[in-house]
Amino acid sequence: MTGAFAARHIGTDASAQRVMLDALGYDTVDSLVRRAVPASIQAPARETSDIPIAATEAEALAELRVLASQNRAARPMIGLGYYDTFTPSVIARNVLENPSWYTAYTPYQPEISQGRLEALINFQTMVTDLTGLATSGASMLDESTAVVEGMLVARRASKSASNVFLVDADALPQTKALLAHRAAAVGIELHHTSFGRSGPEAEPDAFGAFVQYPGATGRVWDPTEVVDALHAQGGLVVVAADLLALTLLRSPGSFGADIAVGTTQRFGVPLGFGGPHAGYLAVRAGLERQLPGRVVGVSQDAASRPAYRLALQTREQHIRREKATSNICTSQVLLAVMASMYAVYHGADGLRAIATEVAKKAEALATVLRGYGLTLSSDSFFDTLRVHVPGYARRVIERARERGFQLFWADEASIGVSVDETTTADDLAAVAWAFGLPEGEFLGAGEQGERTLPFADAEPLAGVPSSLVRADEYLTHPVFSAHRSETAMMRYLKQLSDRDYALDRGMIPLGSCTMKLNAATEMAAVSWPEFSRVHPFAPVSDVRGYLALIEQLEVWLAEVTGYDAVSLQPNAGSQGELAGLMAIRGYHRANGDADRTVCLIPSSAHGTNAASAVLAGMRVVVVACDDQGNVDLDDLRAKVAAHADELAALMITYPSTHGVYEHDVLEITQAVHDAGGQVYVDGANLNALLGYARFGDLGGDVSHLNLHKTFAIPHGGGGPGVGPVAAKAHLAPYLPSHPLSQRKDHPGGVFDGGPISAAPHGSAGILPISWAYVRMMGTEGLRDATAAAVLAANYIAFRLRDHYPVLYTGDGDLVAHECILDLRPLREATGVTVDDVAKRLIDYGFHAPTMSFPVAGTLMVEPTESEDLGEIERFIEAMIAIKAEADAVAAGEWPADDNPLVHAPHTAESVVAGEWKHPYSRETAVYPVPTLVRTKYWPPVRRIDQAYGDRNLVCACPPIEAFA
Amino acid sequence: MTGAFAARHIGTDASAQRVMLDALGYDTVDSLVRRAVPASIQAPARETSDIPIAATEAEALAELRVLASQNRAARPMIGLGYYDTFTPSVIARNVLENPSWYTAYTPYQPEISQGRLEALINFQTMVTDLTGLATSGASMLDESTAVVEGMLVARRASKSASNVFLVDADALPQTKALLAHRAAAVGIELHHTSFGRSGPEAEPDAFGAFVQYPGATGRVWDPTEVVDALHAQGGLVVVAADLLALTLLRSPGSFGADIAVGTTQRFGVPLGFGGPHAGYLAVRAGLERQLPGRVVGVSQDAASRPAYRLALQTREQHIRREKATSNICTSQVLLAVMASMYAVYHGADGLRAIATEVAKKAEALATVLRGYGLTLSSDSFFDTLRVHVPGYARRVIERARERGFQLFWADEASIGVSVDETTTADDLAAVAWAFGLPEGEFLGAGEQGERTLPFADAEPLAGVPSSLVRADEYLTHPVFSAHRSETAMMRYLKQLSDRDYALDRGMIPLGSCTMKLNAATEMAAVSWPEFSRVHPFAPVSDVRGYLALIEQLEVWLAEVTGYDAVSLQPNAGSQGELAGLMAIRGYHRANGDADRTVCLIPSSAHGTNAASAVLAGMRVVVVACDDQGNVDLDDLRAKVAAHADELAALMITYPSTHGVYEHDVLEITQAVHDAGGQVYVDGANLNALLGYARFGDLGGDVSHLNLHKTFAIPHGGGGPGVGPVAAKAHLAPYLPSHPLSQRKDHPGGVFDGGPISAAPHGSAGILPISWAYVRMMGTEGLRDATAAAVLAANYIAFRLRDHYPVLYTGDGDLVAHECILDLRPLREATGVTVDDVAKRLIDYGFHAPTMSFPVAGTLMVEPTESEDLGEIERFIEAMIAIKAEADAVAAGEWPADDNPLVHAPHTAESVVAGEWKHPYSRETAVYPVPTLVRTKYWPPVRRIDQAYGDRNLVCACPPIEAFA
Repeated sequence: MTGAFAARHIGTDASAQRVMLDALGYDTVDSLVRRAVPASIQAPARETSDIPIAATEAEALAELRVLASQNRAARPMIGLGYYDTFTPSVIARNVLENPSWYTAYTPYQPEISQGRLEALINFQTMVTDLTGLATSGASMLDESTAVVEGMLVARRASKSASNVFLVDADALPQTKALLAHRAAAVGIELHHTSFGRSGPEAEPDAFGAFVQYPGATGRVWDPTEVVDALHAQGGLVVVAADLLALTLLRSPGSFGADIAVGTTQRFGVPLGFGGPHAGYLAVRAGLERQLPGRVVGVSQDAASRPAYRLALQTREQHIRREKATSNICTSQVLLAVMASMYAVYHGADGLRAIATEVAKKAEALATVLRGYGLTLSSDSFFDTLRVHVPGYARRVIERARERGFQLFWADEASIGVSVDETTTADDLAAVAWAFGLPEGEFLGAGEQGERTLPFADAEPLAGVPSSLVRADEYLTHPVFSAHRSETAMMRYLKQLSDRDYALDRGMIPLGSCTMKLNAATEMAAVSWPEFSRVHPFAPVSDVRGYLALIEQLEVWLAEVTGYDAVSLQPNAGSQGELAGLMAIRGYHRANGDADRTVCLIPSSAHGTNAASAVLAGMRVVVVACDDQGNVDLDDLRAKVAAHADELAALMITYPSTHGVYEHDVLEITQAVHDAGGQVYVDGANLNALLGYARFGDLGGDVSHLNLHKTFAIPHGGGGPGVGPVAAKAHLAPYLPSHPLSQRKDHPGGVFDGGPISAAPHGSAGILPISWAYVRMMGTEGLRDATAAAVLAANYIAFRLRDHYPVLYTGDGDLVAHECILDLRPLREATGVTVDDVAKRLIDYGFHAPTMSFPVAGTLMVEPTESEDLGEIERFIEAMIAIKAEADAVAAGEWPADDNPLVHAPHTAESVVAGEWKHPYSRETAVYPVPTLVRTKYWPPVRRIDQAYGDRNLVCACPPIEAFA
Repeated sequence: MTGAFAARHIGTDASAQRVMLDALGYDTVDSLVRRAVPASIQAPARETSDIPIAATEAEALAELRVLASQNRAARPMIGLGYYDTFTPSVIARNVLENPSWYTAYTPYQPEISQGRLEALINFQTMVTDLTGLATSGASMLDESTAVVEGMLVARRASKSASNVFLVDADALPQTKALLAHRAAAVGIELHHTSFGRSGPEAEPDAFGAFVQYPGATGRVWDPTEVVDALHAQGGLVVVAADLLALTLLRSPGSFGADIAVGTTQRFGVPLGFGGPHAGYLAVRAGLERQLPGRVVGVSQDAASRPAYRLALQTREQHIRREKATSNICTSQVLLAVMASMYAVYHGADGLRAIATEVAKKAEALATVLRGYGLTLSSDSFFDTLRVHVPGYARRVIERARERGFQLFWADEASIGVSVDETTTADDLAAVAWAFGLPEGEFLGAGEQGERTLPFADAEPLAGVPSSLVRADEYLTHPVFSAHRSETAMMRYLKQLSDRDYALDRGMIPLGSCTMKLNAATEMAAVSWPEFSRVHPFAPVSDVRGYLALIEQLEVWLAEVTGYDAVSLQPNAGSQGELAGLMAIRGYHRANGDADRTVCLIPSSAHGTNAASAVLAGMRVVVVACDDQGNVDLDDLRAKVAAHADELAALMITYPSTHGVYEHDVLEITQAVHDAGGQVYVDGANLNALLGYARFGDLGGDVSHLNLHKTFAIPHGGGGPGVGPVAAKAHLAPYLPSHPLSQRKDHPGGVFDGGPISAAPHGSAGILPISWAYVRMMGTEGLRDATAAAVLAANYIAFRLRDHYPVLYTGDGDLVAHECILDLRPLREATGVTVDDVAKRLIDYGFHAPTMSFPVAGTLMVEPTESEDLGEIERFIEAMIAIKAEADAVAAGEWPADDNPLVHAPHTAESVVAGEWKHPYSRETAVYPVPTLVRTKYWPPVRRIDQAYGDRNLVCACPPIEAFA
């Protein structure tokens, strides 16, 4: 049939696969995979499937349009951390809809990630300026998880002996629920209190406090006294602050807050039914090394020019493993870029104007409602009013819905209304009508029609106490004023993307990261307003299309993994992991096994495994691996025996992080089950398994999946991620719940595990991507993709093994979907390091494979199914050529300290400017193979000095003179 | 108000304008413009306006969504040259929605246009392969105008003395109408005939014949006899062939056709209510120098590497002026790129599969209808059936509409049905039902549901006579098989766009071309299915949104130009010109003045003016210009007197092509009117006038506008263009009509001038761009844009006049929106040419200004209002630095034949590879100013040898070995 998507998604066609199979000595791709995957775990062919026959791209788009039409277009005025916003079209088109931005990987190779690193430095500067704090990270997953992270920072940094954390009674409901769930796991006691509402009360001693600013009810108040009181007892204060409000209100830093958190969603990032959005977390001076998540810092390159890269990486969870204090891994780079560009586009004056207009609209509504005799819960507010409507709250909600507006039903007696930059005077009139005002009586709707409200600019804001009016400047760096025309903004985005290497340039063969195609058809629906402008707490009747899509995707994911229930709530792999472990925790506790807290983790595991276990309140016990990188069955049995009564779980990755199908996986899972433990199968490597074996059949009780790996969600330059958790029926009740979920009757059972993300369905706005992927691949396509990925990895291993030893193989001497090339012999022989090879690959026009994970001194190569044979051969040739270069160093042709490897990558400037003093030629430096003349990607900086940047920590925009 | 679009569109803000005004010595921008524009023509402030107050971007998008919703989503099966198609998402996203493609200019600077030139070479190869002819141009405006061009080629190349052109009675109705209108103007006699239907008849002798293949009724037949007969009498045959059909049918070249024309719309280009689409025209060997429009050829650069550029440019209308044989100027590059990429993406086998599926679906429908007792007008067909339904054709149309399908009502007794790649078995069943078949009786709709029809691939096509089955190969060049995965296609598009320079990189200061911002919001609606999937002949009730948008835009354009009526039908500026002149022709003839055929054209005019006049059947008389480049009033009066009785029109450009506001324009127009002539005002320079003066008030009777200049439609790398024609009431009846127009009662009057484009509303699909531009700018914004454009041009003139003389100025020593820099003194002093400066600007990161137009040896600079002061200063500094380089050559520092100017542009390879033997450094070559290190754009080739390519004409993809 014409139009089959799988043939577009999979890079190697039948003739290319024939070439590869001939080299490997197999008849068919299927026979290769069936040789590699242990027969004992191969899933039998299914007679029926919930996954429909593959749709063409046109059919999938048509079905998505039907689903979109089932979401009712309503205007959300619910607030609670989510606001409608105008995404500037220039940003939507040139970032969100541009593969140069969304197909990029996490900036672990900073030399070819300078564009998005600059955008993230802008983000950090925006956050520190607005919060008045010293250092911001490069984004968090959402506001509520950022609050949890803030609480954990406070506990680590506090000198208080207390185990109590004070929580603002006016916090967002989802944040309260998340805090409760997470605090319980790590033994923190929460105490809710009505800060500033009542007189000075006797609060318990606390290591920290959390303040919502403005409050969930809209209240704006001065937290100075709370801050001072906490500081007096050695505690720290976490403030969740609305960045738009901070353009008018005093900053958290100005009243002494230690930590500020929040979301940047309303800075031009679509609602998307709850995500993805970039949360933020900033800290005062002295706490920077306590920051969870990623931080971008300024360092310098080999030419001593400023260059950006991730700072303080030794803090990160995958390095610290069981000593980690956070499991945050993926951040929300794509969304952070959008939010930062919104600030760049509007600048300080533009943001202040937007905020002022929002505040004035809220004020106008307040005036009208009060004039009608209604009372508000607070006289001070920024954008949100809590209106007293004793006994007829439902009626107001209904009337508003009649006019197409969603308000927040707080309780029978009160309604929340939030105004945002999209609210018009007509909207306010409709809302007033919903509250019972006569038609057309809205004062604000002046002669000029719906567009302008009759505001006098100089007028003070009635809702903001004068003591809280912001006086200091922010966003004064030139970047926030240099790109204010659309032409200038378009070019800035183009220039930044030109500095980056993404999938639109070539292969990113990152082991364990599965950088496959993110097809344009998959991405399309993300931009449709029916999916993008939906509030996460919208009523069920307005989101039927979304819920249908979510439920279908859950069913499909359950089927392909062999589980009974799936929750799409976790908005990152690490959060899926945590959700899975929390489910195991909940299960054991429900069974009276509260002491089952030991989590066995093989030494080869992703560092995040251990970090998540710690945050789920578990103790990590490491299980050894054998020479082949497989779990040491004897050691496992010994550890199981030693901890039998305390055994909570084993976490195992399949295929292993070494890229092989472990033969004995059934024995391993059996051993754990026999001892009463649960088996957690990490889904990181699912791309090697889909269609051939299922986690549930391997003995897995619960898993997380990475939709941004196997299911085609783009990595976005370092996020978003989506990490659904999938479980067997006995664990299903403990999967994530949410206090504001629209789904009371879930087909997979009612989940009751406490929330793991701020939004009920996590990053719902990008789920159409994975939905479209499965819909267009069908079960056959998914299996073919697996087979093509395994074939490609084995072909690369076969072609390169004479040049670089392949460290691990499994049955049939085959690898799974990735292979580890051992560069340690090379280093011994030549002095050339993994780093040198990785950076030299840039000169050859490639993103390096995964470096030194899971084994130091190695490269892990994962080509995925989407690369065609031409690109695979180009990579193989580059690796062979680099080996020859290293051999030349070994042979003394080039000195060990002056050769094209140690000086890689070479910028254009470095081969053009000044005298050339190297023993190799300029051509050798930048055109080591002739085809590069036509397709050359020029890295924007030379090799970056990582240590320099950590010694001289700068995490905000450097002055422009630095680039002179 | 926050969100004003004008502030995003206009690059200079108040503070930048202050700096510029201070330099120029003016208080306000308005006072500057009012000094430059003669007071006698300044339009008074309007009390009322049909143009609403400026909308924000969000408001404009919301209004466009309302208009979109007024187009009824129906499935078109009307055919007649327009078919629904699936645009591959990867092409839509990365070409149509990517500013790197759509904001590029015509490839007149080929060194920085290699990406789209390669795409166009692919297009030409696709066309020549499928048509079986030797040489194709780089696209035509649409199929019907291509037929006219083909007829004109036949007349020029024929040895026949006859003035008759035979026209296939089975031609498309719009083509027949267009032929009639155009043939009359140039004195060709048309003779309609039913080729191949009847026995051998006595046709008149003819210089050419036109065959529709397959016919409008769907008939497939063998034109060999017609071709042989024509050749025997020295005539040529033009065949309009459907490219998709040609994947299965014998090619026109194979049966001896001389010229093939057609549309490439169904190769993935959205219907868009009629356009823009790329037409094509290909010729047999020996006719290549007769090709109208642009042709891309292969030449070589200074390093003897293959490089693409426009070939045979001396054929073009702007060079040949009144000797021109065609007025085609803009082509349809963006759409040609899309169509070529559709072929690249599908390849020969993919296209053949699509065509086979289409043919089988038509066959299945034919079988069912025949089985029901209906008769078809032809037993042979490809995709279209003409069904005999005596007396109940309207009923069938109505039933089809009930089910959401549009069929073609041919007459009371017959219905046309066209199948396309989007047609499903369910669709066929619905159509069969419309013809009266019982529900569900459709044979094709097998068990597999709507997606697949039970076709046996090997089965021959019943509709295609075996003598016409295609046997030869096509699309065998590797480019048509190398990019078949989406990943490969995405990268190919990225690599090509990386070779081009578009507005997303920097200023394109092209005098007379107005390369302003094409805002993302303006572009948005073009991609919406409600606008993109609409057939040009859809019934009026299905296109109310489109018609409302078109009528609003017409009213707005009439208001700002001072005319009474506007037609948006012309799909290029040249066609607008022609339409305007045809209106003048019609007017004179209606008044009994058939002898009024003299068209006065100033010597400074755009060459296209003269070419269009010739095609409107006029004689061109050139009017002299004075030293200042203004029309010589005395010469004008003399010429008017000399031709008083024959005077048809004067064509004048305002401001003049010299970039100044001529002071005496009212005297000029008065002189023409006094002699009974009409005044045609060319709208090329409207960007200097909008809001300050109106063509209608200057004495203009008719004008064309260039929406792709003043009204923000992107140039698309060399098209699409939109060239509406606007006229006073007395000419309105002679504006373009269309036989299939939905608008019988036009608010501006019923037009009856004969069609000028294939579609009733021309390139309707991109009109939302200009609609959004006017809607978001409002009258104030439009005026402010004019003022900012004039300020920017004057600032550049002021800053550069000490380095390069400014050739012409008007009142106040001011220029209009562009300025001509005289480089002739520089050449005399230094030997450095305009070409050298233009190519050297590439090294500085700029697209050159217009070269040697309207005066040889000059550069005409038009910055537009969209450039900010930073970019303007960067350009000024580059021009000053280049002057200093030229001075260094004059001073003997560098030899005349070895300096950075004559060797410009410098590729990366040229400064990296081999020994450096020049007297200037590598840094001087490529980083003449230090900021370039960060933002360097690398030209992909060195200076291209134009003459070599014309001497060695190659207009198809070169073998890949050529690039080794």
